Amino acid sequence: MNSKNNIFPLDSDFLKKCLNDWEVDLTHVSIRELNRLVDELSAHFEVEFLRFEFGVPGLPPNKIGPEEEIRILQHNPRIPSIYPPFDGIPRLKVAAANFIKKFLDIDVPPKSCIPTVGAMHSGFICQAIAGRKCPESNTILYLDPGFPVNKLQTKFLGLQEKSIDLFDYRGDALINKIEEIFSTNKIGGLLWSSPNNPTWVCLKESELEGIGNLLTKYDVLGIEDAAYFGMDYRQDYSQPGVPPFIPTIARYTDNYFLTISSSKIFSYAGQRIAMTVISPKLMEKRYKNLRKYFDTERIGHAFVHGGIYPTTAGVPQTPQHALAALLEAASNGEYNFLDEVKVYSQLASKIKIIFQKYDFNLVYDEDMGEPISDGFYFTISRKGMTGAELLFQMLRFGMAGIPLSTTGSTKEGIRICVSIIRDSQLDEMEDRLSALNHQLQPNPV
Amino acid sequence: MNSKNNIFPLDSDFLKKCLNDWEVDLTHVSIRELNRLVDELSAHFEVEFLRFEFGVPGLPPNKIGPEEEIRILQHNPRIPSIYPPFDGIPRLKVAAANFIKKFLDIDVPPKSCIPTVGAMHSGFICQAIAGRKCPESNTILYLDPGFPVNKLQTKFLGLQEKSIDLFDYRGDALINKIEEIFSTNKIGGLLWSSPNNPTWVCLKESELEGIGNLLTKYDVLGIEDAAYFGMDYRQDYSQPGVPPFIPTIARYTDNYFLTISSSKIFSYAGQRIAMTVISPKLMEKRYKNLRKYFDTERIGHAFVHGGIYPTTAGVPQTPQHALAALLEAASNGEYNFLDEVKVYSQLASKIKIIFQKYDFNLVYDEDMGEPISDGFYFTISRKGMTGAELLFQMLRFGMAGIPLSTTGSTKEGIRICVSIIRDSQLDEMEDRLSALNHQLQPNPV
Repeated sequence: MNSKNNIFPLDSDFLKKCLNDWEVDLTHVSIRELNRLVDELSAHFEVEFLRFEFGVPGLPPNKIGPEEEIRILQHNPRIPSIYPPFDGIPRLKVAAANFIKKFLDIDVPPKSCIPTVGAMHSGFICQAIAGRKCPESNTILYLDPGFPVNKLQTKFLGLQEKSIDLFDYRGDALINKIEEIFSTNKIGGLLWSSPNNPTWVCLKESELEGIGNLLTKYDVLGIEDAAYFGMDYRQDYSQPGVPPFIPTIARYTDNYFLTISSSKIFSYAGQRIAMTVISPKLMEKRYKNLRKYFDTERIGHAFVHGGIYPTTAGVPQTPQHALAALLEAASNGEYNFLDEVKVYSQLASKIKIIFQKYDFNLVYDEDMGEPISDGFYFTISRKGMTGAELLFQMLRFGMAGIPLSTTGSTKEGIRICVSIIRDSQLDEMEDRLSALNHQLQPNPV
Repeated sequence: MNSKNNIFPLDSDFLKKCLNDWEVDLTHVSIRELNRLVDELSAHFEVEFLRFEFGVPGLPPNKIGPEEEIRILQHNPRIPSIYPPFDGIPRLKVAAANFIKKFLDIDVPPKSCIPTVGAMHSGFICQAIAGRKCPESNTILYLDPGFPVNKLQTKFLGLQEKSIDLFDYRGDALINKIEEIFSTNKIGGLLWSSPNNPTWVCLKESELEGIGNLLTKYDVLGIEDAAYFGMDYRQDYSQPGVPPFIPTIARYTDNYFLTISSSKIFSYAGQRIAMTVISPKLMEKRYKNLRKYFDTERIGHAFVHGGIYPTTAGVPQTPQHALAALLEAASNGEYNFLDEVKVYSQLASKIKIIFQKYDFNLVYDEDMGEPISDGFYFTISRKGMTGAELLFQMLRFGMAGIPLSTTGSTKEGIRICVSIIRDSQLDEMEDRLSALNHQLQPNPV
């Protein structure tokens, strides 16, 4: 940590040279390119960056997961030789159905719960089915901003995308806008996450109800990406079987896929394991056009036999057991996962205040009048600057983040991820933001 | 084991009823449907079947794999929380490059070695790239018969397929036939496995050389599925760094993907881990049409960032370490994996003799004059019977296998997989085959 040494601002010529040499445009920078750029700057100037650009767990996993994998490998040494069932090991399916009941108060049979190789795998197959169920509805509609890689999936699948910015549309306006687009009959799937990456916007129950009605009315498939399941700490969702239950589209339509990632809530990103819940009615629904791609018309069969099988032929065995153990412990109250990851929320609250103190504004600042929740991410902007311009200056002061231009947002700004920031870095952060703020004054002294 | 109790042949009406009730046609039966049918028959008639239909490892894994996963989980408990690099952990990439040198005598840098979630994941991405590199060459050409799920991948990807039956074309005739089809410019990728599932046909070096030349000449991408890497026991490929080296397309073209599965050679099917080797030159090759689907024109980048990332965002961490440990031990001579799985070959030799004794014939019986190798699979037929008819009768005598009609073969017959048959079952098998043979005589007594 070197700000006291007056190293900032870093030489802008060197930064420009890096960007030129690597043909990187900050407006469209990928997270990978940004990581590399920050590594380079950090090494060149011998300064540790405040890395707000990563969107990775900052915590170690609860020991329940690794211990279960070890136990399985020790007690059943044949397990690594046995192909996993394509639709998941029975134990995990049961654990998932129980977890869904305990935290969402939704009843689904184990058959409706299908593990995937991380949530990305789930989203990939969900989009493939939603975008191909009818030839004319080959467009995925996004509630943006969002995770850029979902759009890379749309591209891989040869589907089209369309976007609604949650900045402009909330509540009735959102529902009306969705209906306007659904009524074109071009939309096969609607994809969102709530809490949302990058803004931490959380959809209200009334919005989910409206969306659910439209999914049913227009026969569009909802893809609810619960990457941050229950991590809206304005309510206490942490008690299994006790209200309030986590808001979900599953309460309002039968046309849903629900993806629960283990990466953030269980800090289990490394073993690539997630759960897809498909509504029992949707499991059995048939669409003629699916046969062309999945060798079957039935959605549940298309997901497992036409989706999981040809992509990975199942999900690795021991991570399935780890996830089962985590879900079991969460459901029976032994493991309060939401309490364990609450540290992100507490950190976000502190970091947000410091940004605001130095004249940075929250871009997505409220949920229909209510201040936005504190969580993994928030979004900031600086008056009169584009996201790329702001990022350029932040880099000169040893800080990195993701420009909103890469997330499908129509707004200018930067995504700040708090997950790997340590409390011990907050003073240094304040110094840098103060210096950056000074630099950005119309007439810096 | 009940043949002495005169339970055979099982009642054909019950079998027909099952097939009718489940709408199963044996000509097109999937392995899943067949498994279920055999389970049902086995339960109903209280008889253990000889299950030649599975294509799964019959051995437990060598302890190197599970022990390494346990070691990593114990010594680095944060590992499950850390996203794996999309292109694989460095240790595994180095181990794979070394393994390739030791067993194929091919030089590739670690960068060319990219793990996937099983070989299926590899084949999926390889096909996606091969079939999309140019708009006009969207057809995958198969050297058939083959593994049916590869064609399900072609379907998922919206690509076209074409087939050459190795029964009809070997040697120069094969090369000429491939060239005839390549010259239409409609082929993006050529996919085969050698040893081959279901026939155990092994391509000769001269054939690989001819194929390699054509891949280069017509700029088609070869996808060599080495699911049974080195398991042709007519030669001893088991000594690392010592000739003879395993035949591979990598010796004859730069246009190759090589997929090495851990499922059979390391009995590690359960943890879904495989390795794709991409030729260093192909890694850097660019095709304009790829940008539409992968956001990049460069093959290596398309595989990792446009393929691995949107499908699974990497490969689970600890199985990567297991595979690394297995490859390391194999390369330094501590672990003779080919010797460990030789048991399949020995078993195949015995089982083949019994089938032939009772008037069943090998369908794919030779490699250009040389008797076919003994391995995981072989193919049998019965004069005057279709594969479906033969399977029907085999089922009545407590035996199951896969009809060749499901594998892209133009021949009638059954795939026999020996992997889960035990030596102790051979007498019973002989009794059943003898009884079946008797039953199939033109005028059974």
